[in-house]
Amino acid sequence: MKSMTIIPVLFLFSLLSSIPHYSYASVNDFCVADLKGPDSPSGYNCKPVSAVTADDFVYSGLVAGDTNNTFKAALTSAFVTDFPAVNGLGVSAARLDIAKGGSIPMHTHPGATELLIMVEGEITAGFMTPFALYSKTLKPGDVFVFPQGQLHYQVNSGKKKATAFLAFSSANPGAQLLDLLLFGNALSSDIVAQTTFLDIDQVKKLKARFGGKNLNKHMSM
Amino acid sequence: MKSMTIIPVLFLFSLLSSIPHYSYASVNDFCVADLKGPDSPSGYNCKPVSAVTADDFVYSGLVAGDTNNTFKAALTSAFVTDFPAVNGLGVSAARLDIAKGGSIPMHTHPGATELLIMVEGEITAGFMTPFALYSKTLKPGDVFVFPQGQLHYQVNSGKKKATAFLAFSSANPGAQLLDLLLFGNALSSDIVAQTTFLDIDQVKKLKARFGGKNLNKHMSM
Amino acid sequence: MKSMTIIPVLFLFSLLSSIPHYSYASVNDFCVADLKGPDSPSGYNCKPVSAVTADDFVYSGLVAGDTNNTFKAALTSAFVTDFPAVNGLGVSAARLDIAKGGSIPMHTHPGATELLIMVEGEITAGFMTPFALYSKTLKPGDVFVFPQGQLHYQVNSGKKKATAFLAFSSANPGAQLLDLLLFGNALSSDIVAQTTFLDIDQVKKLKARFGGKNLNKHMSM
Amino acid sequence: MKSMTIIPVLFLFSLLSSIPHYSYASVNDFCVADLKGPDSPSGYNCKPVSAVTADDFVYSGLVAGDTNNTFKAALTSAFVTDFPAVNGLGVSAARLDIAKGGSIPMHTHPGATELLIMVEGEITAGFMTPFALYSKTLKPGDVFVFPQGQLHYQVNSGKKKATAFLAFSSANPGAQLLDLLLFGNALSSDIVAQTTFLDIDQVKKLKARFGGKNLNKHMSM
Amino acid sequence: MKSMTIIPVLFLFSLLSSIPHYSYASVNDFCVADLKGPDSPSGYNCKPVSAVTADDFVYSGLVAGDTNNTFKAALTSAFVTDFPAVNGLGVSAARLDIAKGGSIPMHTHPGATELLIMVEGEITAGFMTPFALYSKTLKPGDVFVFPQGQLHYQVNSGKKKATAFLAFSSANPGAQLLDLLLFGNALSSDIVAQTTFLDIDQVKKLKARFGGKNLNKHMSM
Amino acid sequence: MKSMTIIPVLFLFSLLSSIPHYSYASVNDFCVADLKGPDSPSGYNCKPVSAVTADDFVYSGLVAGDTNNTFKAALTSAFVTDFPAVNGLGVSAARLDIAKGGSIPMHTHPGATELLIMVEGEITAGFMTPFALYSKTLKPGDVFVFPQGQLHYQVNSGKKKATAFLAFSSANPGAQLLDLLLFGNALSSDIVAQTTFLDIDQVKKLKARFGGKNLNKHMSM
Repeated sequence: MKSMTIIPVLFLFSLLSSIPHYSYASVNDFCVADLKGPDSPSGYNCKPVSAVTADDFVYSGLVAGDTNNTFKAALTSAFVTDFPAVNGLGVSAARLDIAKGGSIPMHTHPGATELLIMVEGEITAGFMTPFALYSKTLKPGDVFVFPQGQLHYQVNSGKKKATAFLAFSSANPGAQLLDLLLFGNALSSDIVAQTTFLDIDQVKKLKARFGGKNLNKHMSM
Repeated sequence: MKSMTIIPVLFLFSLLSSIPHYSYASVNDFCVADLKGPDSPSGYNCKPVSAVTADDFVYSGLVAGDTNNTFKAALTSAFVTDFPAVNGLGVSAARLDIAKGGSIPMHTHPGATELLIMVEGEITAGFMTPFALYSKTLKPGDVFVFPQGQLHYQVNSGKKKATAFLAFSSANPGAQLLDLLLFGNALSSDIVAQTTFLDIDQVKKLKARFGGKNLNKHMSM
Repeated sequence: MKSMTIIPVLFLFSLLSSIPHYSYASVNDFCVADLKGPDSPSGYNCKPVSAVTADDFVYSGLVAGDTNNTFKAALTSAFVTDFPAVNGLGVSAARLDIAKGGSIPMHTHPGATELLIMVEGEITAGFMTPFALYSKTLKPGDVFVFPQGQLHYQVNSGKKKATAFLAFSSANPGAQLLDLLLFGNALSSDIVAQTTFLDIDQVKKLKARFGGKNLNKHMSM
Repeated sequence: MKSMTIIPVLFLFSLLSSIPHYSYASVNDFCVADLKGPDSPSGYNCKPVSAVTADDFVYSGLVAGDTNNTFKAALTSAFVTDFPAVNGLGVSAARLDIAKGGSIPMHTHPGATELLIMVEGEITAGFMTPFALYSKTLKPGDVFVFPQGQLHYQVNSGKKKATAFLAFSSANPGAQLLDLLLFGNALSSDIVAQTTFLDIDQVKKLKARFGGKNLNKHMSM
Repeated sequence: MKSMTIIPVLFLFSLLSSIPHYSYASVNDFCVADLKGPDSPSGYNCKPVSAVTADDFVYSGLVAGDTNNTFKAALTSAFVTDFPAVNGLGVSAARLDIAKGGSIPMHTHPGATELLIMVEGEITAGFMTPFALYSKTLKPGDVFVFPQGQLHYQVNSGKKKATAFLAFSSANPGAQLLDLLLFGNALSSDIVAQTTFLDIDQVKKLKARFGGKNLNKHMSM
Repeated sequence: MKSMTIIPVLFLFSLLSSIPHYSYASVNDFCVADLKGPDSPSGYNCKPVSAVTADDFVYSGLVAGDTNNTFKAALTSAFVTDFPAVNGLGVSAARLDIAKGGSIPMHTHPGATELLIMVEGEITAGFMTPFALYSKTLKPGDVFVFPQGQLHYQVNSGKKKATAFLAFSSANPGAQLLDLLLFGNALSSDIVAQTTFLDIDQVKKLKARFGGKNLNKHMSM
């Protein structure tokens, strides 16, 4: 071991490329999002590798959410806007907490598949295609998959609180709650009634409840 | 021109490849679906090139649909199951006919973007995100885009019939009508009410109308 | 209904994420192009969601083009540079008008498949692979598919004007007219003749016609 | 409600397509793997929709693995070969159990990103690029991301057992343990020593331990 | 070393998955094409891993082609149909030999980018967009890129034979020679003349030369 | 030829689009990287087409590398950071020179497949999966494929220098040398020993050799 030489880093470097302007910093092994810059169809621009540290690859917020709300439920996300390191990597996560009697109402994730990993309690989950229902009651150890873009729901069907982790096939899956889509914006009650076959009274009642009258990004109601 | 020689096809062939077992038939310039075989995540298997003719690349069914139904509307599709030549090519088409007073109810195409090209009449179309409505009244010459997976609708807002062509960013966009998802299958009225906030009476009324009581994938209709 | 409470939007918001810095504005349901910024391999950067309105999703220019030209034809596009809302969505459209006796000459769309939807008149269209021609005469109601990157043409083979809509599997399909590729730039007549087997006189004649002598982005000719 | 008519399913059906041979069964909302058939670059062929039930979308095996082994660790997978419903959906999951003092040795998932969601105990995890180490000690509520293809490890650095769930950006991420790659197959000790700079004695010792002498793909074990 | 125990392969195996039916054979690290089965949009089905040997990953045919033909050139391919191991991997290769005075005529690879690596001699290569020519004279050590789907050519502009290697961004790039597309099939001379602006005499002359009269996909040659 | 008219470029232009603001400059036939700007998951932003010349499409650095180093080998790259024209095109190249007795040590390219085209001499190359070795001795005319993300090596097994060209299925394949990953950064010797089963003395010896003690991303070397 006496004759052991330290291999000069320059030699290792030259192995990777004998072209002098080669820079390891540009190797795109990852692309931590620069959330201050613009988004693009493939995601955010990359933070310079020299500014990336180990802290960028951990997100400490996947803790129990507050279920003290109308739905008795909380979805805590680790999407690219929360956790910039998943930018461009095609995967993200979330935590689902549903108190007894609560539920996550009907919703979709446009273009992302969702895996639900049961941790505690009991959840009845399902998704529907035009002519079929695919629904199961899940217990810890079960995994359920909601294929991309399908309307789905999760209901706490047990006697105590339920907890699950979610994985998505996109760094930015979004979450579109059906009630907000139908009753939470400026869409007129008449159009909703015509295109859903709901009674007009039902529509107006839910628009009142979900803020459709008062919420519109272009006009006050 | 006297000395003009016909270039032997074998020579041309050898230019493409001097390896004898090369076969132009395997060049995957297109992949017309063999609908008799299985589907896969990327689409159907390819019909052998030797069995493909010009007729495979034309589909003659994009004609006016029959609007004499409850919705006063018809969607006539040229999806991969109708038109096998679009297999694997990431695009398909449809024709939309809406009689006066009719509409295409709320629906999604999971994972496909839709372009609507107005041809005749007037359609008011829109899609919603949780906090915004993007809606316009369209006339011939207008094109509207419904981004992938978004819930959307089309209403004939004019005084005569309306016609449009649709293009999709998928060979198999599907079409999920919200009413069928909620009221057309075996999903229990209680779960629908809990996860949509609709009144239970409203749910039962629409389940009766859309066949939800009698229709699930395990029983005959 | 007396006891009906409006669900505070904040509660709905918290359902989506209990992490305070979550912003719905970043959900990438769409990515309307900011054409003032740079392009990237996946498309243009996204306009901020707060600046997007319903007007962004409609393009009103897909009207009849002027066919009073050499080709007696016009291709009117709704590509991303015309219609920024299709950015990143993998689809775009165009309108084709061909007067009697006119045609769209041989061309390719590198990397985009084209669907042609016949609306009026008669078009004979086709594409070629090295050993086969796939050609059909199309009438209203017909759809024809030109697989990605294939050389193809459209000829008005009827007795009046013809109109069709086109859909593409790319937001930016481009259009490369063969005559411009061969005769419209600085490529020398000798190279054209050698690599096409055209007679040198023919090459010179078409270079004169298509401006090859006078058009070069680096030098005046 | 007296005049309420059940909308004939045929009418709904005709709304989706007025073309008689349209079949909802072919809509590719999901593609549950037929594991008896061949694999392809995009995944397995789809089981016929008529044979798919709700049971296909749940997998009940994500329970604690047996850590009574050399590594004091177990990785329990819900990959496509375990859970055929994730076929083609670009996501899968696993459960990680590491007893006190145990670890998951250095390994890669070629082409898949891994998210680690901490559930119980403490894990020190990290991945390396040629000139940097990105490592963190994780506690419940933390999520860590290992970008695709990076060599990484997980060590139980706490005083009791540790549990985590893993999500992958592929339905079939694989798992390549470095020791098996180097010492578990027919690769000669000389080549290993030359291409890793390990001492030949070290190589032989580990080949003996990991079965490299007796294990290659052409002989039985 | 006396106390060294061989780690039972079963334990290693159990680390990868404690679920008994897990099979390493299904891990899709590669997917060697089964050329006897059908093609699909993503490529051929995979040969069973148990039937794959090291011989599958080598192809010994990338040798000098015979340039004793009309073009004084040969393109020797290592595409998926020659070299099944590249199936699904998005890359393939070829060797280009051009004798003095020879050339590879105008052609495209629909949907594949081509890299040309000069090995010997001198080649002038170029591609054209509608208004620009991008052309260079290349010497050993030069790499040139022809972006996907662009019409391009390669001419031996030196005084001896030229050799280059080609890499493609597709396992099956195809090769469409312009002369074969225009003059080698059943496309009528009138249509060619109308859609290319070539003189009819020129068209007929080249159809005679490239076999267009006698060659279409329905007749034998 | 007397009556020959030059077709006004404006007419050709109008054929492409009758909409005045259409600009050919935005057609994304290629996207030469602007290396001064940020990277993104899909690659770098595009240099304006008006600034692109033929010189951008050629890279003259793929010459013999200097093998006068510890490994007796050199890898000379034409990746996007060397050759900006391959940005977004999914392919790149490199040249491999290995002196007699030299080798390229074990390494991976995360997410890129590598093709090796033998030019001169003899190389023994291989990659390993957990239970199999795929290795061959290669001579000029042979092509070998290393599927994406697999650990692999190349050894000069001949009696003179060896040369090969490499093609990758990514514009930016990276190169992760196993010794640098394990011994070239701040990873502690204890963790390396625990997660590789190497003896601690072996680990310390190689850390000394590969600079692991003094090299981490936060300190100068």
